[in-house]
Amino acid sequence: MNTKKRIIIVGASGTMGQFLADLLEKENHEIIRVSRTSADIKVDTTSTQSIQEMYEKVGAFDALISTAGSTFVGPWKNLNDKTFRTGVEGKMMGQINLVLIGQHYINPKGSFTLISGALTHEPQLNFANASAANGAVEGFVRAAAVELGNGIRINAVSPTVIESSPQYFPYFPGEIPTTMKQLEFGFKKSLFGRLTGQIIKP
Amino acid sequence: MNTKKRIIIVGASGTMGQFLADLLEKENHEIIRVSRTSADIKVDTTSTQSIQEMYEKVGAFDALISTAGSTFVGPWKNLNDKTFRTGVEGKMMGQINLVLIGQHYINPKGSFTLISGALTHEPQLNFANASAANGAVEGFVRAAAVELGNGIRINAVSPTVIESSPQYFPYFPGEIPTTMKQLEFGFKKSLFGRLTGQIIKP
Repeated sequence: MNTKKRIIIVGASGTMGQFLADLLEKENHEIIRVSRTSADIKVDTTSTQSIQEMYEKVGAFDALISTAGSTFVGPWKNLNDKTFRTGVEGKMMGQINLVLIGQHYINPKGSFTLISGALTHEPQLNFANASAANGAVEGFVRAAAVELGNGIRINAVSPTVIESSPQYFPYFPGEIPTTMKQLEFGFKKSLFGRLTGQIIKP
Repeated sequence: MNTKKRIIIVGASGTMGQFLADLLEKENHEIIRVSRTSADIKVDTTSTQSIQEMYEKVGAFDALISTAGSTFVGPWKNLNDKTFRTGVEGKMMGQINLVLIGQHYINPKGSFTLISGALTHEPQLNFANASAANGAVEGFVRAAAVELGNGIRINAVSPTVIESSPQYFPYFPGEIPTTMKQLEFGFKKSLFGRLTGQIIKP
């Protein structure tokens, strides 16, 4: 049913990125694995020049999935303008710049799928930086959806704590982890459906 | 009913700030008017040093209201990493730093009330930067509410286009403007109630 797509996965060496890259590859899509360190192509999403070079190397593509973006995790007393920048440059501007620059390279009717998270609306201690970065990404996704031309779509997937990252469970009391299957379905909903401007809770 | 408070208003020379400063002063609160250019005390909220100096000058206070924060408004094609920084440094980090620094100066049981806006969830052409900045502020407000000590509260007020700014009406088709009375009530709900972590739609 899903015609073969050329899909960039940014964050391809992380838990989610690797999982999505492997399964979409098995379904005969062409996957370009991108990450900061070890991948087909390297990118530092905190640098617009690095993002531009990444797109130049990749050439035409149908979809971009981002599961990348650092945030500061730690005690509130250590949160200040400096530590806050981890999330501003990483999860927020990194992903936003992937779209602002990538819109000039993506094929018509292509899609961007960014990563957000439940922390936007359900904060936990130590994660205020992620709550803010997620909120920015989500606001941007809704706004970009009304601006992007050529039928290009944009969504974000917003999981809770990920099943395969049990080391984070203690920080998310009472939160039912998002399974890898749910994550897969969330990204596929954005990739292969016609939704745009949506925050998909998988 | 409302005991006299010492209230900092950042953005006091703007439409909303001036309005709130005047009415709260008439109700016998002590108002410290702060703005970038013309006010009792000057602050550049894009500078943490300037914010710190502002708090040092003000001394103890019970509440801070912020109606300040620039964003980039303009055609999508002009939105890039550089223009996006207007909202990142202005409406987003400017307000976040007012809280991160101000928490060390505010009286116990004090309150912070920031400004967000309907664009977070209801985007309009030309305002993607504001949608993202608002989203960040709202995510931060919810997270800060679970972190702040000493009974300190934090909320954001999220109006649509403001009644007294008719020059913006054409950009907000179908949007019923927020009246100044609604704005007043929204801020008072945060100032004098016990809400925290809320996005108040006035």
